[in-house]
Amino acid sequence: MSSSAVTYARENYPRFLDQLKALLRIPSVSTLPEHAGDCHFAAEVLAADLSRIGMENVRLIETEGHPLVYADWLHAAGKPTALVYGHYDVQPPDPLDEWLSPPFEPTERNGNLYARGAVDDKGQVVAQIKALESLLVGSGSLPINVRVLLEGEEEVGGEGIAHYVASKPADLKADFALVSDTELFAPGLPTLCVGLRGMIYTELEVRGAKTDLHSGMYGGVAPNPFFALAQILAGLKDEHGHILIPRFYDDIIPPSAEELAAWQSLPFDEEEYRIHEVGSRQLVGEAGYSVMERTWARPTLDVHGIPGGFIGAGAKTVIPAKAVAKVSMRLVPGMTPAKSFELYKNYVKKITPVGVEVEVRLIHSGDPCLIPVDNPYIRAATRALNEVWGKDTVFIRSGGSIPIVGDIARHLGLPSVMMGFGLPDDNLHAPNEKFHLKNFALGIESLICFLEEVGA
Amino acid sequence: MSSSAVTYARENYPRFLDQLKALLRIPSVSTLPEHAGDCHFAAEVLAADLSRIGMENVRLIETEGHPLVYADWLHAAGKPTALVYGHYDVQPPDPLDEWLSPPFEPTERNGNLYARGAVDDKGQVVAQIKALESLLVGSGSLPINVRVLLEGEEEVGGEGIAHYVASKPADLKADFALVSDTELFAPGLPTLCVGLRGMIYTELEVRGAKTDLHSGMYGGVAPNPFFALAQILAGLKDEHGHILIPRFYDDIIPPSAEELAAWQSLPFDEEEYRIHEVGSRQLVGEAGYSVMERTWARPTLDVHGIPGGFIGAGAKTVIPAKAVAKVSMRLVPGMTPAKSFELYKNYVKKITPVGVEVEVRLIHSGDPCLIPVDNPYIRAATRALNEVWGKDTVFIRSGGSIPIVGDIARHLGLPSVMMGFGLPDDNLHAPNEKFHLKNFALGIESLICFLEEVGA
Repeated sequence: MSSSAVTYARENYPRFLDQLKALLRIPSVSTLPEHAGDCHFAAEVLAADLSRIGMENVRLIETEGHPLVYADWLHAAGKPTALVYGHYDVQPPDPLDEWLSPPFEPTERNGNLYARGAVDDKGQVVAQIKALESLLVGSGSLPINVRVLLEGEEEVGGEGIAHYVASKPADLKADFALVSDTELFAPGLPTLCVGLRGMIYTELEVRGAKTDLHSGMYGGVAPNPFFALAQILAGLKDEHGHILIPRFYDDIIPPSAEELAAWQSLPFDEEEYRIHEVGSRQLVGEAGYSVMERTWARPTLDVHGIPGGFIGAGAKTVIPAKAVAKVSMRLVPGMTPAKSFELYKNYVKKITPVGVEVEVRLIHSGDPCLIPVDNPYIRAATRALNEVWGKDTVFIRSGGSIPIVGDIARHLGLPSVMMGFGLPDDNLHAPNEKFHLKNFALGIESLICFLEEVGA
Repeated sequence: MSSSAVTYARENYPRFLDQLKALLRIPSVSTLPEHAGDCHFAAEVLAADLSRIGMENVRLIETEGHPLVYADWLHAAGKPTALVYGHYDVQPPDPLDEWLSPPFEPTERNGNLYARGAVDDKGQVVAQIKALESLLVGSGSLPINVRVLLEGEEEVGGEGIAHYVASKPADLKADFALVSDTELFAPGLPTLCVGLRGMIYTELEVRGAKTDLHSGMYGGVAPNPFFALAQILAGLKDEHGHILIPRFYDDIIPPSAEELAAWQSLPFDEEEYRIHEVGSRQLVGEAGYSVMERTWARPTLDVHGIPGGFIGAGAKTVIPAKAVAKVSMRLVPGMTPAKSFELYKNYVKKITPVGVEVEVRLIHSGDPCLIPVDNPYIRAATRALNEVWGKDTVFIRSGGSIPIVGDIARHLGLPSVMMGFGLPDDNLHAPNEKFHLKNFALGIESLICFLEEVGA
């Protein structure tokens, strides 16, 4: 904690924050084609900073989508090599009218920095780069070898980086990956994430008549794709949240008794969580499973939107010719995207009502993953976190998906250390996303200490 | 047929068509606030033409929405008075990319005029006015007294005219109403419509969490309003199209055996109708009822669109805080909008799943109606149609709703003659709406002969 790197980080914190704000002003929304230029610009800004702080071989790696940013520093002979990962793309900001300050104008309020991407993941990417800068500039060198690989497609499935990792393993030789895209279990509680859910994101398109029809003239005989879609969707889960796709749960590897016991001892108040974090009348989901099990260790199915039809103000009496539903499923260890999609697709075809045709499309997918905790990098991370935060580190999983972690394990054979500094109420993917500024500062120090611990 | 009015109509047909085209170029979409000015302009254009042809007391009657157009000519002492009704507003043109020519650029192809509103209802309103012009200018006077009342809110429930008819019956004294907003049962087959379905147009709003949530973090415990909406919608009808709202069918007055027999003898090929008019794999709906019964004499429920959530291209892994469904029901004689809405609302609340809240809103409604066929105006209409078209007139119902017909019966005590000249494949409310030009020409002649028959 008294290293010259930490001292440098503390002295330069105001500038670090300004750099984060500059990055947050770039609306690098990866799923919207009109923001492709912004994504490229964000990548250029990060590459320029990596060069400036003394990283080497800095370059953009073009993909079919948004570019990767690569940099390395490989002068710590005999020391391990870290592959440092983060993403510079963000989720769309809508619904815009629920933001208290504009999503791409970073605004400080109550010790937080509000902006789309503040915590997911630009704030954490900047924390990584500023940790590297503090070591390189503040102490003159890195304690271990480092390769940085940032992507701009995490929010849309990460195909570019997946392809690169699969095809160029020799360029990414390392001993472990450092992934900063997760959160603390509770404020002030140092946390390592050791499990992620996978996912399949799909579209269901239902077609009825050849063209839109008048619901007066044809109501009663023309198939209604929206109604058919409602029937299909309602048939996918029962009223207790249990997915009805046959054999969907067959391959699940449940958490160990030890892991379940550790989850039981986490500081968690379900009623507090319901009211302040979810903010719903009631929590839903499978009976017999705790909130942690339901969100970390059980597959789920969600509907994100149903485009098509008449969605303007007022009334239009139309039977639309087609309807689309955006539906995703989260997968847990043991399940694979390919098999899960196949089971889902077949079941949807089976329960599609007469009169309409259905097409089931896979938009993107990611593997679930589970990290063994008994490796030297997790142990070093635990020591670093305990030093900076003054508390024992807890091991949790996340219900979210970071597909690259599975790819890094499969293609590069590396364990990931998922060390992130978000908070449960940081409004990821939602209006008023934020990053707690104290966590930005301590995040930089934690990353410095972690790299020093690994190199010690 | 050899009247001087008919001769005038034939000589002036090219100008009549130009006037229709000019009206069709005005995008008077009543449901979209940004087109309020266009609606007003369409009303002014019609009022100016009514003045020009010699109608008297021409004026716009302002409402809370779009204005009514009123005109009269009351110099046929001792003769009956007609209340001539039509509407100048149109449905929204979307989906725009399915139009072969722009919706507000009237285009002639294959003997048809393509444009939004071509048949519903601008083409028919212009036919009415041009019949009046042919009589007034071509023969010097009208054979009966006429009051014209046009509205601009038919496609959004017609509140303005309903309020006016209910509050000013003395200003609308007449013996019958002439409504031109319906269609021929088949090309060349003269048709009078004697029954309409009513409707209730509603919105279901379902709210879950207080804000949009990340489906990875919260999938499994947070209620999903889109999924809840799918469950509610799927619970409203069974797989055979039978509406599951308790007591919904209780008050229905079924068609008489005589009417059912007449429907049986109409020229109708169900397979042809399925392929060329509906264009779906299969017709759906209640078993044991013919297509005519299902579309004219049975209530139905349709979903028109499900706004909210993520509807952009690509993927967004959000559990939206709320979802809305636009749902309408068509009602048949015996049913009332008020009672039907109450039964629906109560049932929706009963079947709403735990974890979400639901709000059920009535957007607009209209009464069903049934016209007794043994009145002198229907008989005069039959004679006129037989003369112009050379065939016996058939009596049909329409599955659509023209709320004003119920209001005219209830508040003014008038029977309506629903004489319209659309065709079943005219794409009402859909892309590529059209009016068959021969029907525009014969429609004008039919209306001339009808007024002459009533005055004879």
